[in-house]
Amino acid sequence: MRNIKLTIEYDGTNYVGWQKQINGIGIQTKIEEAIFNTTNERVNLTGSGRTDSGVHARGQVANFRTNSSIPGEKFKDALNIKLPWDIAIVESEEVDLDFHSRYDAVAKEYSYLIYNNSNRSPLYRNYSCHVPYVLNFKEMEKGCKYFLGTHDFLSFAGSKNILEDTCRTINNIDLEKWKDCIKLNIEGNGFLYNMVRIIAGTLIDIGRGKIQAEDIPKIIDYKDRKFAGHTAAAEGLYLEKVYY
Amino acid sequence: MRNIKLTIEYDGTNYVGWQKQINGIGIQTKIEEAIFNTTNERVNLTGSGRTDSGVHARGQVANFRTNSSIPGEKFKDALNIKLPWDIAIVESEEVDLDFHSRYDAVAKEYSYLIYNNSNRSPLYRNYSCHVPYVLNFKEMEKGCKYFLGTHDFLSFAGSKNILEDTCRTINNIDLEKWKDCIKLNIEGNGFLYNMVRIIAGTLIDIGRGKIQAEDIPKIIDYKDRKFAGHTAAAEGLYLEKVYY
Repeated sequence: MRNIKLTIEYDGTNYVGWQKQINGIGIQTKIEEAIFNTTNERVNLTGSGRTDSGVHARGQVANFRTNSSIPGEKFKDALNIKLPWDIAIVESEEVDLDFHSRYDAVAKEYSYLIYNNSNRSPLYRNYSCHVPYVLNFKEMEKGCKYFLGTHDFLSFAGSKNILEDTCRTINNIDLEKWKDCIKLNIEGNGFLYNMVRIIAGTLIDIGRGKIQAEDIPKIIDYKDRKFAGHTAAAEGLYLEKVYY
Repeated sequence: MRNIKLTIEYDGTNYVGWQKQINGIGIQTKIEEAIFNTTNERVNLTGSGRTDSGVHARGQVANFRTNSSIPGEKFKDALNIKLPWDIAIVESEEVDLDFHSRYDAVAKEYSYLIYNNSNRSPLYRNYSCHVPYVLNFKEMEKGCKYFLGTHDFLSFAGSKNILEDTCRTINNIDLEKWKDCIKLNIEGNGFLYNMVRIIAGTLIDIGRGKIQAEDIPKIIDYKDRKFAGHTAAAEGLYLEKVYY
């Protein structure tokens, strides 16, 4: 028995998310099918975490166990020819049998793309969140720094997270701006359900003047979802990298 | 009777091109339908030129005549709510009755995006041309400068162009590079059928060492399509701007 680690890029537009749902196909299922078509084994592919419908990834990580004798690095090409065009294996390698893509992750990096123009964009429509209002970039940048460090992020958690430990550490957060685009980069030891999208939504609300940057510490302290900003659209979110 | 000029952005992925074909719907038809749903008039929308299936636009221009009393600048919002998500009016305005979006165009600007990575990219698949080979960027830049100026571009014309005047003037051409992307920017007084894609394909062939940059003047002189490089994929091409 061997353990294979995959690094995966996908366009989440046409999927219900990483995991299959009653209403549609998950990316995980597509890759499990490609593995079956390659090894004739029905494997359970373990992802580093789920992504929602419409969310993209440049560096999702997953692992599976196999009795196949295909060398680890050869799985990349073998699976890519069986996968649809909107999913690709970027890297494959054999890892220790005890490697677990979810439990062993020590940090994750996400990006969130905002298209800030009064017109909606046909070209960016599935790959960014459209914000037609004027945004104060300086205030958004000011808001970012309050998220740094270890906090109880319950105010920034979607409803699926209310029962678990909600402390997380943000190691890096910054914003880039070019032309009509604003990109949020955020890296932390873990993220609650919808946490990046709620942080992005809160920063957008700061940019619009609906929330004051200086109020972020208070919003964190309230430990209540209703004080944070809106949950920004799934289309703008990218899982960039998982660290082990 | 009034004349309305539209500037249009579209994602060409799901269309057979600007103009309708036997095998599918054109972008032009979609906009004509939106105009009908807004004004109750069956208009003929004249584009600055056709784009092929899969080709995108950030600044296609088209015009139509109408008896409607809707102010020119209001057509933008009126049409956008009727148009599908992959087509949007960026600007609308009333222009002189004799304005013609094709005959009056004095220059056009295109870009061509190359995704240069050994892996295919799910996220870029419909928005770039995938080149998995190592490319010599310096040689490609060297090749660019030979296209500048006025030449008979018959060697760089698709077969639909063989009967017309094939002299064109390239005013600007340059390449940008960031991460795994190379972007060609090209502006000229007009372009033959497939001309930008054949120039892009020739530059890719130069980057791979299959064509020498210094041979471009000779290839132009041959006035024979078979000496130029391949026609690069439609997905990488963007009509950026039409000048009047």
